[in-house]
Amino acid sequence: MTSTDGGARTGDAPYTEPTIADQPITDEEIFLSHVGGKLSVELRSPIDTQRDLSIAYTPGVAQVSRAIDADADLVNKYTWTDRLVAVVSDGTAVLGLGDIGPRASLPVMEGKSALFRTFAGLNSIPIVLDTKDPDEIVETLIRLRPSFGAVNLEDISAPRCFEIEQRVIEALDCPVMHDDQHGTAIVVLAALRGATKVLERDITKLRVIISGAGAAGVACAKILHAAGIEDIVVLDSKGIVSFHRDDLNEVKQELAEFTNPRAISGGPAEAFSGADVFVGVSAGKIAEDLVATMAADPIIFAMSNPDPEIHPEVAAKYATVVATGRSDFPNQINNVLAFPGVFKGALDAGANRITERMKLAAADAIFSVVADELAADKIVPSPLDDRVAPAVAEAVAQAARAEGLH
Amino acid sequence: MTSTDGGARTGDAPYTEPTIADQPITDEEIFLSHVGGKLSVELRSPIDTQRDLSIAYTPGVAQVSRAIDADADLVNKYTWTDRLVAVVSDGTAVLGLGDIGPRASLPVMEGKSALFRTFAGLNSIPIVLDTKDPDEIVETLIRLRPSFGAVNLEDISAPRCFEIEQRVIEALDCPVMHDDQHGTAIVVLAALRGATKVLERDITKLRVIISGAGAAGVACAKILHAAGIEDIVVLDSKGIVSFHRDDLNEVKQELAEFTNPRAISGGPAEAFSGADVFVGVSAGKIAEDLVATMAADPIIFAMSNPDPEIHPEVAAKYATVVATGRSDFPNQINNVLAFPGVFKGALDAGANRITERMKLAAADAIFSVVADELAADKIVPSPLDDRVAPAVAEAVAQAARAEGLH
Repeated sequence: MTSTDGGARTGDAPYTEPTIADQPITDEEIFLSHVGGKLSVELRSPIDTQRDLSIAYTPGVAQVSRAIDADADLVNKYTWTDRLVAVVSDGTAVLGLGDIGPRASLPVMEGKSALFRTFAGLNSIPIVLDTKDPDEIVETLIRLRPSFGAVNLEDISAPRCFEIEQRVIEALDCPVMHDDQHGTAIVVLAALRGATKVLERDITKLRVIISGAGAAGVACAKILHAAGIEDIVVLDSKGIVSFHRDDLNEVKQELAEFTNPRAISGGPAEAFSGADVFVGVSAGKIAEDLVATMAADPIIFAMSNPDPEIHPEVAAKYATVVATGRSDFPNQINNVLAFPGVFKGALDAGANRITERMKLAAADAIFSVVADELAADKIVPSPLDDRVAPAVAEAVAQAARAEGLH
Repeated sequence: MTSTDGGARTGDAPYTEPTIADQPITDEEIFLSHVGGKLSVELRSPIDTQRDLSIAYTPGVAQVSRAIDADADLVNKYTWTDRLVAVVSDGTAVLGLGDIGPRASLPVMEGKSALFRTFAGLNSIPIVLDTKDPDEIVETLIRLRPSFGAVNLEDISAPRCFEIEQRVIEALDCPVMHDDQHGTAIVVLAALRGATKVLERDITKLRVIISGAGAAGVACAKILHAAGIEDIVVLDSKGIVSFHRDDLNEVKQELAEFTNPRAISGGPAEAFSGADVFVGVSAGKIAEDLVATMAADPIIFAMSNPDPEIHPEVAAKYATVVATGRSDFPNQINNVLAFPGVFKGALDAGANRITERMKLAAADAIFSVVADELAADKIVPSPLDDRVAPAVAEAVAQAARAEGLH
């Protein structure tokens, strides 16, 4: 594995919390900063002389092509593809905006690529597709496979995202992850580890409600179950996901198999009663009187953006630990804590996939970074904490090697 | 049209001929310079603070996505795609190496992207496809269309390249050009303008032989014909392309329609006899005694790489003006003189295609840059002459505007 990445923020300097400017961000400022896009492709060495040209292009480059033709693995050493993450979307589930299509999704994908560079030092390009057909998306990525080294699937609507991710993982021999599922799930688990340490609770004994059975909700249920939590109840718009219902699609049937061990049925009232943890990953609202029915001192993760399921100040009347997806409240659960390090670790280890064990290792690593600094208003690191991605990458690479994936 | 490109060499400083190092380039030097690849994706503005993150990613980016959703044209203003050139190849005809596949072609494509940045200040990414099927290539580029603003097709084998280019042009509403055809043809025409000015000949009166009826040969025949040259004879491995033959594919039938006006048949002997110009774009060899049968003081472009069809020192026994594709002889005919400026000009004008008129304008612009400095050993600018791309871009944009393509 080459290690020629540059430009990442590194964890070498002592970490200092960034100052959050208190001036509101104006629309003008946002649009101005997007003119021309957020990315550029640059040369790693300049082409200034005839000699540079003869090395980087003809005739010199023919030697390198000939070498790769003779030994295909050399493509990883002598091109950028091995460390290049394609951020792939069809624009069907963009932020809170829904199906706005590939073009309107591009600013988000550029932002994602920018974060891969900033936090993991990885090259990344947005690839947005003018098709929503799962067959065509999978087929296109198979054809594009030689152009990159990993695929971050992004903002693809549920339940299509589950099938598409599974098929792309099976079709490509490289790390693939749908970040809306697993990036979110990894950070939720890290945050829950932080919260339970602050509150001195046993994570496996918690009763957890997850509101939302889309991409993030399903992945949160899976990772929390994998982390040893037995009592998980998932709510969708029709109520508690359970075998009492006859309207469950394949993904929700799978959820029903490992969640809801008390086999309750009903809606929010039945789910909230006595629960220890609320994980909100839907756009729905939670009334205060529901929160009042939870167990004493519950943990509230109200992550809907931009409007949390319950206002953190209201939640704080009942809960010591409250988290949101927003940067202007404490405990921001932001998947930028996960994906840069997860992909870097997978690529560092030369892993051909991203496993459940690697995701659990990522969550533990995020938690570990702030384990000695934990407080009710700091259960996760800041999204800008540059110790996180290297720690996650190392943990993920170790897990990959332990699984023999390299 | 935004003008936010950066990093291109500019024509502002007075041009000085680069010094050509006389030390041979070693394989070690070539391979070392390719470790990790030649490109990187960088941020145009750093993400250092919570404020930066909130602008470039959530929640700020949602404003930009929402704006593009409401007005699709804004994608050109607020993302990089509008000025992004995809260098697309299936690896079927790479340099002199042939069908070495997409992975082994990557160093060449990275080199091409590096030249787009260096000479035109454009972002460019290599896209190599794991399919050789024209239907699949066209279909894939249609699906990828929202990801970029122009397509440079590269190193696709003939005669597939003709069909693929034509179909991609028809399918996509953006500039598309197969550089092996038209980049080469544009520079050949520019060089021929230079040569005829030095020799004080009338370009339209010349008898021209083109050796090779592949991508470059066909495009050279077309552009020289469009420039007013009537007597063009094309040679392929079977001899002179003419209606006397019954083995012509569709592309060669088209050639036969506008070339060979004297309706001669036979092979190299018949073609060379009395010819004024030799344009070599095949890997074949030309014996000295053939050159001896050409008209007095012929013009010899022996562009096969790395071994010219005839050694320039041998050709110089007969010809005042000799050009090759190599950097270690005078008069290097290198398509880097054309493609960066052609694409920049097309994108500057907001053109949705690249027309014959734009290509002719590009050739004239390349010629014009050195019109006052012409000599037998300087019929074209140096590939590193940073006056060229801006001049080509301006001429191409003007031609596009004159055709109402914006």
